[in-house]
Amino acid sequence: MRAYIYAGTSKKGVKGLPEQIKDLDEKQLEQCAEAVRAELISAVRENGGHLASNLGAVELTLALYKVFDFPKDKLIFDVGHQSYVHKLLTGRSLEQLRRAGGTSGFPDPEESGEDSFIAGHSGTSVAAGIGFCNARDARGESYKVVSFIGDASLGNGLALEAMFASDRKPKNFLVVLNDNGMSINKSQSALYRKLTKITAKRRYRKFNSFLARAFRETGAFGRRLRRMKYAIKGWFNKNDFFERCGFKYVGPVDGHDLHELVGVLSDIARMEEPVLLHAVTRKGMGLPEAEEDPSRFHGVGKNFSSGENSFSAALGRLLCERAEGDPSLVAVTAAMTDGVGLSDFAERYPSRLFDAGICEEYAVTMAAGMAKGGLSPVVCLYSTFLQRAYDQIVHDVCLQDLPVIFCVDRAGFVGADGKTHQGLFDISALRAVPNLSVFCPKDCAELADCFDLARALGTPAVIRYPNGYCPNLGSRARLSVKLWEVLQEGEGVVVLACGARAVARALEAARLPDLADTMVVNCRTAKPLDEDLLDAVKGRKIVAFEEGYAAGGFGSAVAEYYASNAEPVRLKIMGAPDDFYAHGTAQQQAEWAKLTAADLALKIRALKKRP
Amino acid sequence: MRAYIYAGTSKKGVKGLPEQIKDLDEKQLEQCAEAVRAELISAVRENGGHLASNLGAVELTLALYKVFDFPKDKLIFDVGHQSYVHKLLTGRSLEQLRRAGGTSGFPDPEESGEDSFIAGHSGTSVAAGIGFCNARDARGESYKVVSFIGDASLGNGLALEAMFASDRKPKNFLVVLNDNGMSINKSQSALYRKLTKITAKRRYRKFNSFLARAFRETGAFGRRLRRMKYAIKGWFNKNDFFERCGFKYVGPVDGHDLHELVGVLSDIARMEEPVLLHAVTRKGMGLPEAEEDPSRFHGVGKNFSSGENSFSAALGRLLCERAEGDPSLVAVTAAMTDGVGLSDFAERYPSRLFDAGICEEYAVTMAAGMAKGGLSPVVCLYSTFLQRAYDQIVHDVCLQDLPVIFCVDRAGFVGADGKTHQGLFDISALRAVPNLSVFCPKDCAELADCFDLARALGTPAVIRYPNGYCPNLGSRARLSVKLWEVLQEGEGVVVLACGARAVARALEAARLPDLADTMVVNCRTAKPLDEDLLDAVKGRKIVAFEEGYAAGGFGSAVAEYYASNAEPVRLKIMGAPDDFYAHGTAQQQAEWAKLTAADLALKIRALKKRP
Repeated sequence: MRAYIYAGTSKKGVKGLPEQIKDLDEKQLEQCAEAVRAELISAVRENGGHLASNLGAVELTLALYKVFDFPKDKLIFDVGHQSYVHKLLTGRSLEQLRRAGGTSGFPDPEESGEDSFIAGHSGTSVAAGIGFCNARDARGESYKVVSFIGDASLGNGLALEAMFASDRKPKNFLVVLNDNGMSINKSQSALYRKLTKITAKRRYRKFNSFLARAFRETGAFGRRLRRMKYAIKGWFNKNDFFERCGFKYVGPVDGHDLHELVGVLSDIARMEEPVLLHAVTRKGMGLPEAEEDPSRFHGVGKNFSSGENSFSAALGRLLCERAEGDPSLVAVTAAMTDGVGLSDFAERYPSRLFDAGICEEYAVTMAAGMAKGGLSPVVCLYSTFLQRAYDQIVHDVCLQDLPVIFCVDRAGFVGADGKTHQGLFDISALRAVPNLSVFCPKDCAELADCFDLARALGTPAVIRYPNGYCPNLGSRARLSVKLWEVLQEGEGVVVLACGARAVARALEAARLPDLADTMVVNCRTAKPLDEDLLDAVKGRKIVAFEEGYAAGGFGSAVAEYYASNAEPVRLKIMGAPDDFYAHGTAQQQAEWAKLTAADLALKIRALKKRP
Repeated sequence: MRAYIYAGTSKKGVKGLPEQIKDLDEKQLEQCAEAVRAELISAVRENGGHLASNLGAVELTLALYKVFDFPKDKLIFDVGHQSYVHKLLTGRSLEQLRRAGGTSGFPDPEESGEDSFIAGHSGTSVAAGIGFCNARDARGESYKVVSFIGDASLGNGLALEAMFASDRKPKNFLVVLNDNGMSINKSQSALYRKLTKITAKRRYRKFNSFLARAFRETGAFGRRLRRMKYAIKGWFNKNDFFERCGFKYVGPVDGHDLHELVGVLSDIARMEEPVLLHAVTRKGMGLPEAEEDPSRFHGVGKNFSSGENSFSAALGRLLCERAEGDPSLVAVTAAMTDGVGLSDFAERYPSRLFDAGICEEYAVTMAAGMAKGGLSPVVCLYSTFLQRAYDQIVHDVCLQDLPVIFCVDRAGFVGADGKTHQGLFDISALRAVPNLSVFCPKDCAELADCFDLARALGTPAVIRYPNGYCPNLGSRARLSVKLWEVLQEGEGVVVLACGARAVARALEAARLPDLADTMVVNCRTAKPLDEDLLDAVKGRKIVAFEEGYAAGGFGSAVAEYYASNAEPVRLKIMGAPDDFYAHGTAQQQAEWAKLTAADLALKIRALKKRP
């Protein structure tokens, strides 16, 4: 495989890999699949990444490349965590996968023109595909559009909207439903049940293997036979769900059988009408440990380790503790039980964990209903996915002033997942929402403090914290006593640090000998602000420091406070500049945004020098 | 009806209206329906409001009240624009409907405990209903939960997520599908087609009327007959769509036949299993002109007039003009073709208008696909509904830096629709999004200027403007020449006014004799800022003035700019304080938020007096 890869598509005169794939016969394709799999496993072992989903998509991707003409035809991935094979086939090395300067773990048109659409969030591919088709038809162009979506993503509201919005789908549009029979966590989705029902029928299985033998034919005759086969299958399964949405339903096919896939895709490529191809695959295919535990191998670190996330772990422990004495406390996630730290909670209180699937909107509005009905829901989401539920937070939770607590994980820079996953918007987007408090604990011990105060307030609250390791810093003043906490007194510049990483960096900067006179404040609430403290320091030089967009963020709130009374202050805001931040480590991303301890020290020094 | 209403539920000793309804026989119920209809028509003629949807929901609401025990049982409206009947039945007068201090046009638990959940946006009721059921079951309570949703709302992503997320729905949960066979505009939704197909079958209709005659029986025997009837109907229609989602499907029933409705609801009330009742209604029922043109009667002004919205009309004209010479220009709406001013466009360029239904997420991601495919989509949405597509704007449009223009109507205070519909979040939420420009034209002429510049930039842009009448103010400097425009020179306080209403009020204040030295700036871009102008005025006293939340808004951006370099300035931010704003006129709402010309004048004077 490596030989192929380094030939690449970029060098002139060399036949690009996509063209080479077209020349391969079935046997060679199978060898290629094996090579790709080995490459995937080695790359993810080295760099971490999404393994199980990519292993499941090897044959499907190869077969698509064998049949279609990408990038003239458009291949649009949903979520994009299954695009590694596509990246290999378009000449991108996975050696530096998800590292700064290396290949991104998600499709990104900025990385390569062969990525026709960005992905990272769920449920986008069908809508984007329809958009492409509309554009193509309006411009009189002719190419095929292929949206590649998993069964879990199909249950997302955006995907369902795109499926149901019209019963007429554009021509020359193929949706490949990669049905691996599971969401990121196990799912009870109505869609999932429907799909399982089809593929699990014993009669069907027998029938299918009979057909498979009977129809291993090539040529026009084989094509006709295969068409008959899938027509029979379709009739057999009476799967009119997709037909109602305007697709010709084809399948189910074995998503690991290259012969079957190439055959059926070749037939589809000759058809004009919109098709949904239902391919059944196995998540983790080819790596026994991943096949057995695909959830664990969904996203892994180097050497297939699970990442250490102090806050997620602390949240899990905290909710288990608090749930014991408080039967009204329930947890809500959106297909992220493990990721947000709720595995133990799920085991101890299975009836009190509500996993909505990849449906953030539903999760939040359901939580609002539960709160109205007398429960205390804790909605645990990643910052980047919370964006999906922005309106539900405003309209269903905060307008009714309901006691819903949002535990917002992966806030700030997220590292290897890169620009589609950064948690930089939450403070800007949410700070303006009335009734909502925004907590930014400096460490895991303070997470409990924030949680308990939010519980006591009985109003909507967001508690945001980053991923990765986070040391406990010890508290001087409980949150219930004072909103903000002075961690280091000093007569010099005042650093208002908001959030765990900002506080740690502020303390680091203030330990420098020439900056020992710096006052460091742990601003653990981005809303409300500690107005007493702000009044007390208003004559001094101030730096507001955070890991989130400067626009509309915490520092902006401080500036607004002083500007509510036209108070002239010497305030410097340090937050992420107006840009998107690619993959790398979270520390590297902080460097790119000039938000490290060293950057802070520079600014403090510059401010000290000024009159 | 008025006699009933004023008995009310609030007076002690008097039997509340909901209880009175229970005592009515069929004949009396029909009289009551007639009285309610008259009341609706007179109230909306007097105050404006949502007429067609409420006229369609009269019998359904009465029948629900006859059978269920609200508010012990929970009645959850979707969108809420069909809740007037419920408001009448719970003793609320519609005489001051949608006026300040009068009854809100949407359910609001703050207005009455009999409104079990807020509504205003689409697709929330099923998720909220499931949340209520979860809470009830966890707390060991026993009541029924009824979600009341229209067919157009059911196609919304949030509603579809709630339908599909699990194939097991809670017990004692009823979804009433109020199928009036149309979205706000006519729809080609796959769901809609499915529903029409069922009810339109000729054979079915004949069969149905036969059954209707045969089963007009009461008592246990009648119940059994009715059950059989709906079982037969269900079988007849093979409508397994809802069964797959975990509901027992009942229907279709005639949503205006009180006898049929009371009968079938009584049966359902005795059942434990989750039920979806499919009721076919007629939007506008009882008012011939509304039945004929339900779109026009969806939301109307006083005397059934259509509201005058200068910007919407100007946008419609502009897009028609620009579309003529520019075949790549296409328009996208989410079931709001008329509302956003695109009726003429729809007529002139039917193939270039894409109505996504009430699917804002789909609308935006599809537009992103169209932009990637070479078109120039203009997405026209109300500010409040744009919130639904926040993540799609970030992830699908701006991350890819695509040339999608968002024309954001109803930005700022919206008047009679009240707190669920205010357009106050857009600048705060969107200003932080990289690659996105935010334009706030001062009048309709400048709308064209903003549009042309956005088009020329070829990057994502938001153009926001309010509803209602807006005079043209004339331009001194084209936007392409200078970002901001000085409308009045002066040596006094500098007013940085952002948006049409703010500019008009600033000019009004500056016309006052003692404030003639005020400098008035039309800040037509909230992002990027005119940094040259900001640098030029930094030593002066400044007021940043806007109609949007102060938190994270335009004034906040100005404060950030000065704080990016720790520049001490005398800046006063005037934006909407951290609160939700109820129904009234937009002018009243500005008064409540202290954002009128008079409020501005006060602040300018106060600032002038300070050293």
